[in-house]
Amino acid sequence: VRTWAIVVAAGGGARFGAAKQFAPLGDATVVDRAVGVAQDACDGVIVVLPSDASWDAPAGVVCTIGGATRSDSVRAGLALVPVDAEVVVVHDAARPLASAQLFERVVAAVAEGADGAVPALPLADTVKRVDRDRVVETVPREGLVGAQTPQAFRADVLRAAHEVGGVDTDDAALVEANGGIVRIVEGERRNLKLTLADDLALAQALLAGARQA
Amino acid sequence: VRTWAIVVAAGGGARFGAAKQFAPLGDATVVDRAVGVAQDACDGVIVVLPSDASWDAPAGVVCTIGGATRSDSVRAGLALVPVDAEVVVVHDAARPLASAQLFERVVAAVAEGADGAVPALPLADTVKRVDRDRVVETVPREGLVGAQTPQAFRADVLRAAHEVGGVDTDDAALVEANGGIVRIVEGERRNLKLTLADDLALAQALLAGARQA
Repeated sequence: VRTWAIVVAAGGGARFGAAKQFAPLGDATVVDRAVGVAQDACDGVIVVLPSDASWDAPAGVVCTIGGATRSDSVRAGLALVPVDAEVVVVHDAARPLASAQLFERVVAAVAEGADGAVPALPLADTVKRVDRDRVVETVPREGLVGAQTPQAFRADVLRAAHEVGGVDTDDAALVEANGGIVRIVEGERRNLKLTLADDLALAQALLAGARQA
Repeated sequence: VRTWAIVVAAGGGARFGAAKQFAPLGDATVVDRAVGVAQDACDGVIVVLPSDASWDAPAGVVCTIGGATRSDSVRAGLALVPVDAEVVVVHDAARPLASAQLFERVVAAVAEGADGAVPALPLADTVKRVDRDRVVETVPREGLVGAQTPQAFRADVLRAAHEVGGVDTDDAALVEANGGIVRIVEGERRNLKLTLADDLALAQALLAGARQA
């Protein structure tokens, strides 16, 4: 199936403290790694950047500028996906350690009939809801998973979900809200999202440990 | 404050595929590391083991046998906590990379007046509820955190919560259900819970990367 990827690299890094996607990680940057895997796994790649980014895009990658929210940024990327693309994969640049096999798993699930497919893992931590520093609820554990990216969708389904508009934490939530059937495939523990400043050290440790092993 | 730790090492490892707490990790085992940190941070340590365990306990550690559920195992440990203990810290043996500072943070929060204190971090992944391989709900993100162990409690509050009985995913949930005020302190991303077989390799990479850095 003809597959395009949108790599979202437009975030400002409020919790991370800087534009984490441009931080060095091993012999490349975070976004270089995320884009490299997307190129390995997809027919074309669109990268959505902040307006002030100065990033040397690899050959063949299409770049555009993001919007005010993550969903706006995905829409900016989606506008550049060729009309003959059958599957669109949305991936966060802040997840530099996803494997090409993970891209292939979510694309395969869509090719087999799902509207969308997301990688997910059982949550090892107990999920609680807090108000400032006080716990107000322990969320019932039954069936809870943590969803990652890359997330794959039928191109027409993703376009329809984004035409409704809306802002949500991930694209799958928009597709779910629009009535689409989203399947989960097995995620990867290494596929962490760089969120806090410490996470870069964690990713570096993972890379270093993987090289040593 | 006089502080005792209960290290819960009684699980069978249904998802992990073996008794993960006895797996080697660097130059020790998973449970050795978890117990070592607890000894550094607390006045006394009780380790709750499976009935068939053959583990060489370090000097000064009190061992007992666990029950059918995690909560039963905590109750078995709690029965051996001396009556003069003011704070009890419950820690999962499957979290070998928690720091002594993290123990100190949760104990300090209880010393400052909370009924309980748990380490927590914002969830990087989107939380979804699934039925088999289909997404049925994206849980609203507002205020969601992932709670870890060590979890510290006023000894009398933890005893009261466990006297009511009940089985839950963590001790804080029992204390919350019993009306206790549970605070969160900042958790540690490295403090992962070994849940899936791959997690041991992740912990090893973290250790190896940390040594290299």
